[in-house]
Amino acid sequence: MATAARKLGARNIASRREYQPYLEAAWGLKNHWYPALFSHELPDRIVKGVTIAGHEIALRRAKGKVYSLADRCAHRGVRMSKKSMCLTDEHLTCWYHGFTYGLEDGVLKTILASPDDAQIGRVKIRTYPTYERNGIIFVFVGDENYRPIPPIEADLPIRIVDDPTGNPVGYLLDDNVFVRGIHRTGNSNWRLAVENGFDPGHVLIHYDNQIVAATGMALILGAEPMDDRAIEIIDQPDGPKGIMNMYNRLESYKPIYRNDLVNIETPGKLQYYVRTSMFVPGVLLVEHWPAANWAQYEFYVPIDDRTHEYWELIVGHCNSDDDRREAEFRYKNFFEPLGLYDFNNRDLFAREAMEDFYRDMDGWSEEQLCKTDAIVVGWRKLAARFNRGIQEPPPGHGG
Amino acid sequence: MATAARKLGARNIASRREYQPYLEAAWGLKNHWYPALFSHELPDRIVKGVTIAGHEIALRRAKGKVYSLADRCAHRGVRMSKKSMCLTDEHLTCWYHGFTYGLEDGVLKTILASPDDAQIGRVKIRTYPTYERNGIIFVFVGDENYRPIPPIEADLPIRIVDDPTGNPVGYLLDDNVFVRGIHRTGNSNWRLAVENGFDPGHVLIHYDNQIVAATGMALILGAEPMDDRAIEIIDQPDGPKGIMNMYNRLESYKPIYRNDLVNIETPGKLQYYVRTSMFVPGVLLVEHWPAANWAQYEFYVPIDDRTHEYWELIVGHCNSDDDRREAEFRYKNFFEPLGLYDFNNRDLFAREAMEDFYRDMDGWSEEQLCKTDAIVVGWRKLAARFNRGIQEPPPGHGG
Amino acid sequence: MATAARKLGARNIASRREYQPYLEAAWGLKNHWYPALFSHELPDRIVKGVTIAGHEIALRRAKGKVYSLADRCAHRGVRMSKKSMCLTDEHLTCWYHGFTYGLEDGVLKTILASPDDAQIGRVKIRTYPTYERNGIIFVFVGDENYRPIPPIEADLPIRIVDDPTGNPVGYLLDDNVFVRGIHRTGNSNWRLAVENGFDPGHVLIHYDNQIVAATGMALILGAEPMDDRAIEIIDQPDGPKGIMNMYNRLESYKPIYRNDLVNIETPGKLQYYVRTSMFVPGVLLVEHWPAANWAQYEFYVPIDDRTHEYWELIVGHCNSDDDRREAEFRYKNFFEPLGLYDFNNRDLFAREAMEDFYRDMDGWSEEQLCKTDAIVVGWRKLAARFNRGIQEPPPGHGG
Repeated sequence: MATAARKLGARNIASRREYQPYLEAAWGLKNHWYPALFSHELPDRIVKGVTIAGHEIALRRAKGKVYSLADRCAHRGVRMSKKSMCLTDEHLTCWYHGFTYGLEDGVLKTILASPDDAQIGRVKIRTYPTYERNGIIFVFVGDENYRPIPPIEADLPIRIVDDPTGNPVGYLLDDNVFVRGIHRTGNSNWRLAVENGFDPGHVLIHYDNQIVAATGMALILGAEPMDDRAIEIIDQPDGPKGIMNMYNRLESYKPIYRNDLVNIETPGKLQYYVRTSMFVPGVLLVEHWPAANWAQYEFYVPIDDRTHEYWELIVGHCNSDDDRREAEFRYKNFFEPLGLYDFNNRDLFAREAMEDFYRDMDGWSEEQLCKTDAIVVGWRKLAARFNRGIQEPPPGHGG
Repeated sequence: MATAARKLGARNIASRREYQPYLEAAWGLKNHWYPALFSHELPDRIVKGVTIAGHEIALRRAKGKVYSLADRCAHRGVRMSKKSMCLTDEHLTCWYHGFTYGLEDGVLKTILASPDDAQIGRVKIRTYPTYERNGIIFVFVGDENYRPIPPIEADLPIRIVDDPTGNPVGYLLDDNVFVRGIHRTGNSNWRLAVENGFDPGHVLIHYDNQIVAATGMALILGAEPMDDRAIEIIDQPDGPKGIMNMYNRLESYKPIYRNDLVNIETPGKLQYYVRTSMFVPGVLLVEHWPAANWAQYEFYVPIDDRTHEYWELIVGHCNSDDDRREAEFRYKNFFEPLGLYDFNNRDLFAREAMEDFYRDMDGWSEEQLCKTDAIVVGWRKLAARFNRGIQEPPPGHGG
Repeated sequence: MATAARKLGARNIASRREYQPYLEAAWGLKNHWYPALFSHELPDRIVKGVTIAGHEIALRRAKGKVYSLADRCAHRGVRMSKKSMCLTDEHLTCWYHGFTYGLEDGVLKTILASPDDAQIGRVKIRTYPTYERNGIIFVFVGDENYRPIPPIEADLPIRIVDDPTGNPVGYLLDDNVFVRGIHRTGNSNWRLAVENGFDPGHVLIHYDNQIVAATGMALILGAEPMDDRAIEIIDQPDGPKGIMNMYNRLESYKPIYRNDLVNIETPGKLQYYVRTSMFVPGVLLVEHWPAANWAQYEFYVPIDDRTHEYWELIVGHCNSDDDRREAEFRYKNFFEPLGLYDFNNRDLFAREAMEDFYRDMDGWSEEQLCKTDAIVVGWRKLAARFNRGIQEPPPGHGG
């Protein structure tokens, strides 16, 4: 950039020192739970491959349980998910030379054409803890011997209990919730995705989204933090670590609806309540969005150092078949097209627009943050402090 | 290349020493004027982004004047031209968080959601001198504080006065000229584009072009310089620096129409007059082309170290509406399809064919120039001597 | 890979030391004959370019003879094959500035527009020994001054004489053979292509190929070597160097038709005889495939360090026009669609699936070979011992 001659200010340097580990986390935070697939994406007899924080993982379902194993055959390194070979309910067989591993322990049990081979029982590929709930398959990714495996609740948003509307939104792991959504790949580092997600200044990109125009919502241009109570740190013992925009405290977080210098004013008139918070290792909760009493969860799952898998989930209370039919109708005709696509497409656009600056132009030093970035800096410190480890790059990717 | 073992001859080394700065100019010559856009490409309320010599530049028109600013928001580094946000006639607003800069000075004037931010008035992005004339927007690209800004005439071909036909061609900046053309991206370094443009040996690639066949022109196989008067250096004080093929001196520059060894003879019979010259920072003038009394201007604008923007302009005298209608007809049905496309497509092909040799195979040392390359070497020395600086690579591109 | 922490076992290190030169041969073995084009791909007056082991080569036919020259004009480095310019039967002319080389010696004979140039007679591009036989053009690729040029027979499979069926398959160079085939580019290093080709464990990938299902062949799951006689080294003085899977020795090489642990059994019942062998510099012979009395030859010609040209030839005895008509029918309707495409597509898939592991993840150290890989290791040692040189990377590709 032409202005790159500018030197990093003293204030920037001090801030950066406080979240240095975060700056090194290009490949993600390790020893955390991440969503890998929707349950409906993994039928029986199919091996599916995903990459999370550089870990190549093969997933397979057998007798109703999902198993996750390293997705490189120990023999000659092919990804076993390239071609499914499921001969029994206890094994994963590599399609190339028939190396056959136990689903439970990853140990080589036989080689199709060499059943007495000396490698059998000695060679092993690693397995990953796996958890399936409400239609989502989660995998615990990080060090092979990390123990104890923390409960998945610790890597999700808190259950909301303080709700000014009197109707706290549903919780992802509960019974009787409706959970639907999509995931897709974003071409940016996962941290830029996270930071876009709950940044109070980014709302401007949504000013002409269909969902806003259709509902007449008085979308803010942004929100200005007025005192320390604008932001709250969440630190539950052995539980979620997060940071919350306290939009319900209007005296602390001033919503901005107009700017006189450039004569802009937000078009909608309908007041509404929404609150956003971000949890380690990068999980967003938006309360009362895309409609009152609903919640949107988002995960920004690192794939490698320049792409992430963007998960968008709609969660709502659901106590009957009627509720479910109603939810299904609203999801397919409102939440998914206008919320997850039209609205969030802008977020994807924005985070991808930052990628080359942060990757190639030393953006982490060159950025010039402003007042509304207080929570972004707060997040960086939180993530630097509460992660369970910084993911190392995989072999062949420097580091 | 298989023959790479061959060592650089003494003659090559001596020559190269004379134009060493040129060899370092992969990213272009800096502190020069370059065309950025046609006027018709920049309507009101649209922000357009271009890249010239590694400088990312956002252009915007307001109240009839064109402004050029650095195309990276100081906040989080997105290109502002990715999505136009034009709220007033005095400002450029970034679409992401509403950072709003003054068009005249690049100073941060407000942030939409943080109108009292401490950054306002302190943060600044750079601006570029901009000039619009006869349908073309030029930007002065280089060091932010380079002064004085030279007149644009100094970076264009000279006005032709000595013309053996008695009808000197029109000058780009004059009133009463017709100017039309195209630009497109070429996948080669800008220097290879320049060198192809006026090289007397390259004409062979055009032997079967439609414009040649249609007019019956006696296109040469090339031209052989016989003495020093074949080439002339142009060095006007504070004005253009260039080098000209004196094709009007037949005793000094022998046109070649046949080669006996391989029994080839140029097919056309119609004699015609044309003359080519090249000016710093890389501007071609072809007199009496694509037809008598017309001129073709070409600019080879560096984008980065491996691509350039190829500008092709047709310039002609035009003193009345009738002249203009006539010119428009010939341009659309003759000059553009047969000249700028069919004919010059070959030039684009040729320069792109050199790219990997010069980029990856040390072509600047390995090339073996011949007699008809005298003017190419002359150009290199000229450019090495008269440039106003060698453009450094931008951050993230080595250097 | 997640398991990369595992250290290379002592056994692996010992093996690797025995074939170290092979591990350095990413760009191929040099000073060997390689197929470049089918004869029908090189009509008169066309210049075709190929790349073999990093050597860029232009091929041209004149008066019935094929010539191979370096495919970079000495002048400004363009590939002459980008646009054919064939003015006489003795010369290759570069399309750009008319540099004209002798087909026989590569010496610059004229420049179209500079017929008295000092470079003429002094500049030279290299030529390559070329041999055309039975519809295939071979080029000898490697050091410019390597002498003597070995006979092509030394770089092909041996002529089969010991055949348990009593009908030895045809030999590629013989009169009265039918030779047809295809070639296409594979996205893997040539060594992975070779190793896949004759590996007795890889047959599993073919278990559901159409040719197997259609004929009811009892395709093995693999073959287990029981003693040293399973494999035979071929080392003819001044002739072929190769390694053969002695599938005709059933007591030494046990075919595996079922694996009890995972309860798989090969479906077909029809017994058949086939034998595979691999020759330096990477030529496969499959006897009695894709049908009895026929042979399949395969060449895995290095292009660069990550791609190879995959040649698949069908060779059969052919003593009359009737034979030829019959062969043509079977080739077009059986051998090519079901053998060269449907069947061998799987091999291409498999070798490409290994590429990133061996290229980016240190696969040559990380692989964990098993008993059926005995012949793969044997091949590596053979190639390390009998090659005529390791190809250096070309300029611009490290090394």
